[in-house]
Amino acid sequence: MRIRSDLERIEAEIDRHLHSPIPFISVVSRYIVGSGGKRLRPLLMVLCARLCGNRSNKDAALSVVFEFVHAASLLHDDVVDHAEVRRNQPAANTVWGNPAVVLVGDFLYSKAINLAVSHNDVHILEVLTRATTLMAEGEVLQLINADNLEVAEEEYLEIITRKTAVLISAACQIGAIFGGGSHQEELALRQYGHHLGIAFQLIDDTLDYTGQVEELGKPIGNDIKEGKATLPLIHTFAHCAHEDRQRLKEIFSADEISPVDFLKVKSIVTGCGGLDYTCQSALKHVGAAKEALEVFPGHPTKALLQDIADFVLCRRT
Amino acid sequence: MRIRSDLERIEAEIDRHLHSPIPFISVVSRYIVGSGGKRLRPLLMVLCARLCGNRSNKDAALSVVFEFVHAASLLHDDVVDHAEVRRNQPAANTVWGNPAVVLVGDFLYSKAINLAVSHNDVHILEVLTRATTLMAEGEVLQLINADNLEVAEEEYLEIITRKTAVLISAACQIGAIFGGGSHQEELALRQYGHHLGIAFQLIDDTLDYTGQVEELGKPIGNDIKEGKATLPLIHTFAHCAHEDRQRLKEIFSADEISPVDFLKVKSIVTGCGGLDYTCQSALKHVGAAKEALEVFPGHPTKALLQDIADFVLCRRT
Repeated sequence: MRIRSDLERIEAEIDRHLHSPIPFISVVSRYIVGSGGKRLRPLLMVLCARLCGNRSNKDAALSVVFEFVHAASLLHDDVVDHAEVRRNQPAANTVWGNPAVVLVGDFLYSKAINLAVSHNDVHILEVLTRATTLMAEGEVLQLINADNLEVAEEEYLEIITRKTAVLISAACQIGAIFGGGSHQEELALRQYGHHLGIAFQLIDDTLDYTGQVEELGKPIGNDIKEGKATLPLIHTFAHCAHEDRQRLKEIFSADEISPVDFLKVKSIVTGCGGLDYTCQSALKHVGAAKEALEVFPGHPTKALLQDIADFVLCRRT
Repeated sequence: MRIRSDLERIEAEIDRHLHSPIPFISVVSRYIVGSGGKRLRPLLMVLCARLCGNRSNKDAALSVVFEFVHAASLLHDDVVDHAEVRRNQPAANTVWGNPAVVLVGDFLYSKAINLAVSHNDVHILEVLTRATTLMAEGEVLQLINADNLEVAEEEYLEIITRKTAVLISAACQIGAIFGGGSHQEELALRQYGHHLGIAFQLIDDTLDYTGQVEELGKPIGNDIKEGKATLPLIHTFAHCAHEDRQRLKEIFSADEISPVDFLKVKSIVTGCGGLDYTCQSALKHVGAAKEALEVFPGHPTKALLQDIADFVLCRRT
């Protein structure tokens, strides 16, 4: 399958660029970057470039940028969320402490932009740094809304657009630019990535209720413990009966959330259709992502991108 | 004086770019960026551009980049060092907590690079992102060497080169590029910035022993409390008598350092010539910085840059 060789090329480039003259940086970087991420962002960049007619073999080298920015944001997220486990291993901050993790995050982020600069295309850099700025704003927005059950759905979509969709969208758009796509193709792939990113995050939100710990690589109920109201809960809170709402408020505002509390929340969210609603919403975004591909003629890579969009709906990790 | 109008233009640009659609980000950003920094880096960029014949009035807009990168690194430093006070006000992390400070740091950093990209010059971006990558590595290097009294002087110079001098040097070099300087002029100003940056940091190191709290804006003895051995102490430890060395080891490895402990360290460091040695070393770097300017003919801006180098030696804040 074509994807396998792409993933191998991406993996080789990631490995090549994880080197730092300071061994400790390489160790922490490899811990986060090497811990079984799906390489979704680099893969999308490479595929979008191919769909737009890319003939350069430097695509994989550029694609590393998106994995590094993603890894940097995971490191800082873990500090912000006091995470204990990620991808079935102790979160980096629990191994090396917050200071090291903040600084290695800075390194990965800086290294990513430095790599992107070496490709010598200001338009690519505009898209990339606009995305990283929006991402940082999204993270702050999420932090401000911590412990707030009454976020409007629209505002929540704004948060996940910035937090998740913007980087995936940028990877797709930059793939188009790198591959020599037309302005129309560039915008189409940016749209594709945007909707794919939203769908990806919404499914992530549902997995926090329905996932299996071993597959997910982190405990379920994590979002609620961290005070993050995601769409299943936001929708439920806005639509459930008065007494359920009171119960949710109590549980959500408590300092500690017990497994029994979590099961109660899960039962209310399921009963009020919060999970169904979120899945339906993700499905719509997957539809919109595929629709964005319509400007492209039939092409094996187009079919792959469609499959990836469908795959997002079924993902369990 | 010419500097005043430059500083006013720089201040106006800083203010203009501190805006974020998320008011909280603007508040935290203004707290750190607006809290009385000297604007040394932007000013150097503007002056170096002028010395190389700059005719564009976008110099101040680009110079903001250096203040934002600097502010981002201060925010992350404060988290790493658990700082309590900076520039005579509570450190940002004590006001808003570590998570917000990490994320607003990310925002400022990202915004800085985004601003730099808008100036459409890949060479400038190469110099800038190489500098930020080295900076991140330098911060990690310093963290790894925390609580280590036996750092070699050479390694210490490597740390402060990365941590402090690299950004000042990049500001000067980028000023040269922006101003249309020759390759030789670019390298000369890069050298100027490098030596100025080292001298700046060495004087900073001495001020941690001899400064006045009100002028410095933070407690003296801070470095020792944070487990940072700087040149005065490193030199002293390598050269003092056996019993002083034992005393330093005991104090430095203790969990808490009392005012009496600090006075003891200060007396050993002063007695062994650690402060004199550091000042002499700073003086040499100021000399090297001024020497680097020799490739330029007489010019009022050259004289200003020479004055700035001298001023670094006398600074008390």
